Amino acid sequence: MSNEEQGVVGIVGAGLVGALNAIYFAQRGWKVELYELRPDMRLPVHRESRRGKSINLALSERGLSALRATGLDLEKTILEASVPMKARMVHINGTQMSQAYSVNGKHINAVDRARLNELLLDAAEEMKNVTVHFEHRLLQADMDNNNLEFMVANEEKRVYHHDLVIGADGAYSKMRSQMMRRMRMDYNQEYIDTGYCELSMPPATGPDGKPTFALDPNHLHIWPRHTFMLIALPNPDYSFTCTLFMPFQMFEDIKTEEQLIQFFTENFLDSIPLIGEESLKKDFFANPRGSLVTVKASPHNYEDKSLIIGDAAHAMVPFYGQGMNCGFQDVEVLHQILDRHHIKPVSKSNRIEGLKEALDDYSKTRVKDAHAICDLALYNYYEMSHAVTSIKFLARKKLEGVIHYWFPSIIIPLYTMVSFSTLPYSRAIERWHRQSHWLNVAMISTTLATASLVASVGFKYRDQFLPTVRSAIDTMKHLF
Amino acid sequence: MSNEEQGVVGIVGAGLVGALNAIYFAQRGWKVELYELRPDMRLPVHRESRRGKSINLALSERGLSALRATGLDLEKTILEASVPMKARMVHINGTQMSQAYSVNGKHINAVDRARLNELLLDAAEEMKNVTVHFEHRLLQADMDNNNLEFMVANEEKRVYHHDLVIGADGAYSKMRSQMMRRMRMDYNQEYIDTGYCELSMPPATGPDGKPTFALDPNHLHIWPRHTFMLIALPNPDYSFTCTLFMPFQMFEDIKTEEQLIQFFTENFLDSIPLIGEESLKKDFFANPRGSLVTVKASPHNYEDKSLIIGDAAHAMVPFYGQGMNCGFQDVEVLHQILDRHHIKPVSKSNRIEGLKEALDDYSKTRVKDAHAICDLALYNYYEMSHAVTSIKFLARKKLEGVIHYWFPSIIIPLYTMVSFSTLPYSRAIERWHRQSHWLNVAMISTTLATASLVASVGFKYRDQFLPTVRSAIDTMKHLF
Repeated sequence: MSNEEQGVVGIVGAGLVGALNAIYFAQRGWKVELYELRPDMRLPVHRESRRGKSINLALSERGLSALRATGLDLEKTILEASVPMKARMVHINGTQMSQAYSVNGKHINAVDRARLNELLLDAAEEMKNVTVHFEHRLLQADMDNNNLEFMVANEEKRVYHHDLVIGADGAYSKMRSQMMRRMRMDYNQEYIDTGYCELSMPPATGPDGKPTFALDPNHLHIWPRHTFMLIALPNPDYSFTCTLFMPFQMFEDIKTEEQLIQFFTENFLDSIPLIGEESLKKDFFANPRGSLVTVKASPHNYEDKSLIIGDAAHAMVPFYGQGMNCGFQDVEVLHQILDRHHIKPVSKSNRIEGLKEALDDYSKTRVKDAHAICDLALYNYYEMSHAVTSIKFLARKKLEGVIHYWFPSIIIPLYTMVSFSTLPYSRAIERWHRQSHWLNVAMISTTLATASLVASVGFKYRDQFLPTVRSAIDTMKHLF
Repeated sequence: MSNEEQGVVGIVGAGLVGALNAIYFAQRGWKVELYELRPDMRLPVHRESRRGKSINLALSERGLSALRATGLDLEKTILEASVPMKARMVHINGTQMSQAYSVNGKHINAVDRARLNELLLDAAEEMKNVTVHFEHRLLQADMDNNNLEFMVANEEKRVYHHDLVIGADGAYSKMRSQMMRRMRMDYNQEYIDTGYCELSMPPATGPDGKPTFALDPNHLHIWPRHTFMLIALPNPDYSFTCTLFMPFQMFEDIKTEEQLIQFFTENFLDSIPLIGEESLKKDFFANPRGSLVTVKASPHNYEDKSLIIGDAAHAMVPFYGQGMNCGFQDVEVLHQILDRHHIKPVSKSNRIEGLKEALDDYSKTRVKDAHAICDLALYNYYEMSHAVTSIKFLARKKLEGVIHYWFPSIIIPLYTMVSFSTLPYSRAIERWHRQSHWLNVAMISTTLATASLVASVGFKYRDQFLPTVRSAIDTMKHLF
């Protein structure tokens, strides 16, 4: 073998993206060292401590595609542990209105983060060339030699060497901050004034005395209230996990249980009996306030040495349900690019041939898509909390949907491109902007045609229609 | 005294801004603990290691005002150690053109960073309530209790408690990163593709055999070449410190001494004999390449606990010569605000009354000014490397200058507002935008009047002038 050795990749963070990436690298024939700060979440003692803290994620096509591409049973196993959601259920004035995610009946999938992580860790550990190291806290990285120093189980320091290091250690990534000390990385983090608090909605009791869902389970429930909102996602155990999003100041203004109940009575009346008054009070005051940050970094790689993926490279607000899906797609795209560059799991004098070009290529491709979905997720906060209640918005959505149903390749709704395709995010947005242009032209032309028709029928209504026509023509001018 | 104690402020970083801030806090009657990572730069052994590495800064009105406000002899002492620069000297095609900084003969001052730092440290240590701790490396900060843990002289860990902690530890601030772990701080860092390398130009020999300046000392010399440039600032010892700014790729393309000399021959011919061929080769290949980053953070304070100032809060590219001036002004503004809020150096149960409101006020005021000068510094890179050679730009500058000379309060050149006043940066820029508008109106009106005059004299020239008139009218339309 002379100076050749099997390539070793070190992955920091055995969360969702890190674990999936370990599987991909193992399948390419690399030796994989997967490091995780926390103890093994699958041990009974740690499972116990997770009770009542289920966090749901919405798994959609980008995530599913990355699971499918492993060729393992992952997609099937994970879908079995999830609840399909085919529509939003909007709660306004005590009524519920269903808004389908797709005119073709496509759905997204509510899945428990911890359960998903366990399934991925099981699959990773089944590969003979993956070693998972729990309770490994990264202390520092020698970026040029790819030596990582860890504090192991709070007891001793150990140093490991790698040919490539990948940071999949989340929004507050230690790997990223180590890379920033060594390279010129552009970096941006921005918080929104909105925070969140989780509440749980227990199973209801069905007519047969058995547990059942308190709300229609095949929906993502939303109580949109413009500056704040409540959402609820189903769990396979018949409970719902609710999240209240609102400005930090509003959280601070609710100081007593009476104020809380009054706030819910005024805004989310139908949710109170479903959550239960006692449980609501307990959760609201005991659970932490989460904050929401957007993180953008560029580039994502440091030469042929290291790379950040998932939240470490692009944390986003959760309003498009794309955080995990984007992270999973990172993994699929990364390995497509490694394929394209014919990267072999062979290290010659601590170098993998062609790796720098491949990782540069990855950053070039993925940075713009990551930036695009970060921006879109922020925009969708507006849509979820605000626009889903506007008639104009709904009319526009309806028109998009109708055109897409009859001419599926002419107008594709943005939500469909993001959640039900694997089209790069940046291209989905470009296409959306082009479509919006023509959709506006169509809507204005329709207005003009109607107005002309009315005018030709009788001069009687002319005065009423003239302002509309003028404004339509004005808008037309801006479109060209 | 019951539960009252003297307020203790901990300042991390005894650089220029940290040392000045220590003086201000001491004058307010606080107990000041000033921590510095490096050993005492004033000890002969460390002085020696600094030789040939002088970095010059341009001290202007904002910095001077902050020194003056201490009431000490600081301004005078420091000006004595500096060289006044009243103009830019632009080197093009072997000729030199002087461009005054101000129509009133105002000047900026070249000062050696290390010398300035020494003078400030001396002044700080003269205050009986300041203690300077050298070789203190910040390990971590307990942000809510203001306990700072340091590694002292690479030997032992020590923890110090404070009522208020201030991070003045530069662009890569450790205090800032500790604050970011505890609070929602918006943060942005962005590199430019341009790097820099320092070169030194030794004293020349005068006709009397004594050392003298190789170039006119009362100028900031610039060799602007659009995508790259060379600058030179005078030192009191008759040498100049030169800095070559250019894209990293260009640095990398110069691999041999021959390529270097060819590059200088083509671009900076007149500088070669002044720097000296051997010294040029040595410096260019031995000195490190610096990178240039813009850092913006918001807010600058964490409640009443901590604050970042200077580069820690707002690193900027060096092209407006405002980095230090802005940092000194931070100190002056901070203490004006502490005065306005009547902050007393008295700690009751580890709290200083009114401090949160004062620090919130500081962030509110200073964040927008810091962002403004960061953006302007980036814009000035364009002006320095590019625009100083354009005729249109120079005509516009001249017009500004003439109007300012005759009507000093109508049009104030931006450079004058930034460098020769203490007007908040954000207001200087607002005013500049308003002025630019009217200056454009004036220039276009002049063009129109001239054209009409010519047209009335004879139709002969009509065709030549029509396009100018049309374009002037078009531009006018955009201005309103």
